[in-house]
Amino acid sequence: MSQMSHSSRPAVVLLSGGLDSTTALAIAQAEGFTCHALSFDYGQRHRLELEAARRVAAAFNVARHLVVTFDLRAIGGSALTSDLPVPKDRPLESVGIPPTYVPARNTIFLSFALAWAETLACTDIFLGVNIYDYAGYPDCRPEYLRAYEAMANLATRAGVEGARPWKIHAPLITLTKAEIIRRGLALGIDYGLTHSCYDPTLEGLACGRCDSCRFRLKGFAEAGATDPLRYAS
Amino acid sequence: MSQMSHSSRPAVVLLSGGLDSTTALAIAQAEGFTCHALSFDYGQRHRLELEAARRVAAAFNVARHLVVTFDLRAIGGSALTSDLPVPKDRPLESVGIPPTYVPARNTIFLSFALAWAETLACTDIFLGVNIYDYAGYPDCRPEYLRAYEAMANLATRAGVEGARPWKIHAPLITLTKAEIIRRGLALGIDYGLTHSCYDPTLEGLACGRCDSCRFRLKGFAEAGATDPLRYAS
Repeated sequence: MSQMSHSSRPAVVLLSGGLDSTTALAIAQAEGFTCHALSFDYGQRHRLELEAARRVAAAFNVARHLVVTFDLRAIGGSALTSDLPVPKDRPLESVGIPPTYVPARNTIFLSFALAWAETLACTDIFLGVNIYDYAGYPDCRPEYLRAYEAMANLATRAGVEGARPWKIHAPLITLTKAEIIRRGLALGIDYGLTHSCYDPTLEGLACGRCDSCRFRLKGFAEAGATDPLRYAS
Repeated sequence: MSQMSHSSRPAVVLLSGGLDSTTALAIAQAEGFTCHALSFDYGQRHRLELEAARRVAAAFNVARHLVVTFDLRAIGGSALTSDLPVPKDRPLESVGIPPTYVPARNTIFLSFALAWAETLACTDIFLGVNIYDYAGYPDCRPEYLRAYEAMANLATRAGVEGARPWKIHAPLITLTKAEIIRRGLALGIDYGLTHSCYDPTLEGLACGRCDSCRFRLKGFAEAGATDPLRYAS
């Protein structure tokens, strides 16, 4: 499908304010979609990412930036939403589901995207998941996204009224972090606007030691680029 | 599977405080599940149902009653979450998706249930949907629920770590309203605790004229029982 055919077609983009979702937003815009950015204030310990999401949404001049608030701390089960410690300095090739996995988080996020997209009469949703860096997260896999689309086609007006089927776009899904960064830099992204750290200091500096910081730093190094963020360590 | 094998197995039950979800809760308890009730304060105009949910949760002595708050009015698209009028006195056999359909609502609700259930290490979720009264709601169909299970099995620890697959129990799915009421009365439910109206009066009386009131009243009539609720009309 050519880029022109997308022009003025709305899409909902999940925007955490991190490197990946910002790159997904840039790609959606480059493909000609009119982007509606959706962020969540869910009790994450790294709430600073919401300020990054606001900066990014403003820089990209999105059609609308909606922040939906709910409290996953009442549910817990993750180092990001409870008092469990965020792992530091662990091997990046660790196997299994990491303690920063938030139960059903992408499923919750996509469900709000589905609701919003349905009111916008669009069936395109973008998100910045990829399979390499977060191999242990079940809800970052292509087969999960395909199953989500199948469910969405039955859940909504689109499935009953014969509209265009749902498409969950995950343009980063098979890119390495270095490839994501190169792609984003080529699209002119200022990664200084973004925030990736799971456990920032009180002053808002990235810790440099959680999985998210380390994947990011490794990605910039492999891309031969300099991360404009400041780090505590 | 016998009822005994369920004993002390936890389940999450979606509880709106209405007739259907209360009956689903009673059935889950009768099957031996330890019930965790989940309600949503989502900006619905019939917020009185939350008081009913609290009454019902207390009456059933659930293990925990969690109310998750978010604002679907920011998304809109439904007579229940915007200033669109709630239809009154319309033919109950109306076809198509009614204006009280809330985009992706059951998908959002089930996603929070999935998150909570995952932290409880259980894979059983109950909800009170049925295909007859709400034939126009895409997210009340058995094929939707099966697709949701398939997605959930890929979304969560269960799919990665080989736990028991997800089961979305919809014990009312093929029951008429009269059959639901007979079942609930046989289980000893006091339907005076529940709330069904989409558009209650300021005094909290059910309107008697919205789809939900009329299905309920018709159900009680067909069941040969008396609805203990007070109605404005």
